[in-house]
Amino acid sequence: MYRKEIKVMDCTVRDGGLMNKWQFPDKFVKDVYNTCVASGIDYMEIGYISSENAFSRKEVGPWRFCDDTELRRIVGDNKTNLKLSAMADIGRIDYKDIKPKKESVLDMIRVACYVHQMDKAIFLAEHCMDKGYDATINLMAVSTVMERDLNEALEDVAKSKVPIFYLVDSFGSMYCEQVEVLVNKYKSALPKKTIGIHMHNNMQLAFSNTITGIIEGCNMLDATLLGIGRGAGNCPLEVLMSFLKNPKYKLRPVYDIIQKQIIPLQDEIQWGYHIPYLITGAMNQHPRSAMKWMNGEDKDNLVAFYNYMLDHKDL
Amino acid sequence: MYRKEIKVMDCTVRDGGLMNKWQFPDKFVKDVYNTCVASGIDYMEIGYISSENAFSRKEVGPWRFCDDTELRRIVGDNKTNLKLSAMADIGRIDYKDIKPKKESVLDMIRVACYVHQMDKAIFLAEHCMDKGYDATINLMAVSTVMERDLNEALEDVAKSKVPIFYLVDSFGSMYCEQVEVLVNKYKSALPKKTIGIHMHNNMQLAFSNTITGIIEGCNMLDATLLGIGRGAGNCPLEVLMSFLKNPKYKLRPVYDIIQKQIIPLQDEIQWGYHIPYLITGAMNQHPRSAMKWMNGEDKDNLVAFYNYMLDHKDL
Repeated sequence: MYRKEIKVMDCTVRDGGLMNKWQFPDKFVKDVYNTCVASGIDYMEIGYISSENAFSRKEVGPWRFCDDTELRRIVGDNKTNLKLSAMADIGRIDYKDIKPKKESVLDMIRVACYVHQMDKAIFLAEHCMDKGYDATINLMAVSTVMERDLNEALEDVAKSKVPIFYLVDSFGSMYCEQVEVLVNKYKSALPKKTIGIHMHNNMQLAFSNTITGIIEGCNMLDATLLGIGRGAGNCPLEVLMSFLKNPKYKLRPVYDIIQKQIIPLQDEIQWGYHIPYLITGAMNQHPRSAMKWMNGEDKDNLVAFYNYMLDHKDL
Repeated sequence: MYRKEIKVMDCTVRDGGLMNKWQFPDKFVKDVYNTCVASGIDYMEIGYISSENAFSRKEVGPWRFCDDTELRRIVGDNKTNLKLSAMADIGRIDYKDIKPKKESVLDMIRVACYVHQMDKAIFLAEHCMDKGYDATINLMAVSTVMERDLNEALEDVAKSKVPIFYLVDSFGSMYCEQVEVLVNKYKSALPKKTIGIHMHNNMQLAFSNTITGIIEGCNMLDATLLGIGRGAGNCPLEVLMSFLKNPKYKLRPVYDIIQKQIIPLQDEIQWGYHIPYLITGAMNQHPRSAMKWMNGEDKDNLVAFYNYMLDHKDL
């Protein structure tokens, strides 16, 4: 599958950080960075950009803020081909706290939003572009968005300057049919923009849905090492790279960090395929109930969780 | 996805047995049987049917033989809607050792073969049908079969009495595109037969490839509890059933046995997604090298295994 336009983004630190409040040691983040550079990955998302008053430094690690001084501790001036991205949540970053691009080592800011936040997301993304960054909008939880709301959001995005728009399966609830329909809907509504794809693995479909996205025309592909990420995790970078076979991508550095850093991390952080995540995914529900269950005393009682979700799910 | 023709086959004991030489305690096999009955599964494959002289009883458990007396110890006369299947390997079962159906509690015999064994497979499957069983042919490792050989095999199967023919991804090396092409090839060559599908999970595609099979017209679907099976394992039964949503299938008994029997079994038997299986799958190679590596001293050295396979793979 050789399509030069395809770009791969590693989200290991940003999405994996949802599982440990971004408290990764510097060595880990630096190893991920070096791996991305050595393996020819196009983008690395190193965390979230947040204002200092949005979170307590006592609770969350540095990659929840992506302060430029701390970034440079890892990447220096990043004189490599790897582009660096940070994600911005609506309401967690003041415009004034976003430095002009020429003062920052970041290349891209990705704005994550729910559909009702689309006006704010477009404003923030365009603000980032005005300051010199590349920008994307990542519309989360689209599996719960009504058709009319989605159409309106897409019309607004179409009129914006933002060049990249993401299909995000926040709940890990999509089958290939939904991905196919939505990518084509996004393409029709946004003919001049790049479509990205970010899938979750609740039903073991993160990779296959990413393939479907590629086939339908997505050119920005999110993945993480060994699929690390919230709950069931993401599309595994190593599987995606095995599929792409693009000459610029090298697998050896990826296997190297997986054996040295990521597999050992599984002893500390539990992500991946577990039945509670399957249950929320198949029911198109936020994984928070499953994550809470997995941390509770009754975590091994799968039937009880299934019964609980049947009683408590929306719709 | 409601299609009445769809039948699901649980292969937990047969395929899982490849990992522990079919040495499951009776209670385990009985619990799987009771789960299949309670959850509305259509078929349970309880093992391989083999002649006594094909294996040593000291090395392999009873589900490598499927002796009728031993089967009845588990299922009695099986007065349920669940049909029982056993798999037959070419050369491991003498015709004379296959009892007439009226003396056996088995309903179906599935003949597994490589493409060069197709003549023997058709003869054996028709022999089983003459004795009163349902029969299938499962052509293994089709990802390595040349087009001309496959065409000839399909012509022979088309002329046979055998009503069900399986697409089998033995190496876990197929993407949705291959599944789509092959199912349609099988359908064109065998317009009056049912097409079955049996996928492996080396690249986390067993379930998604099974969905592709369903979309393209497969009506016999293989799966196992929590995906247990050789190496990376199979399509997980619980995910497949979540997708099908057919009113006859019940998920609660499946989650119950997973929590009580299958998750604890993971401490004894290691199956599922591991990088060595990804590497053999992505290279379209038999998983035996990966299984050997996983049991060796250097098992955690993924880069070494990747280098080894680059040097030792066929083609």
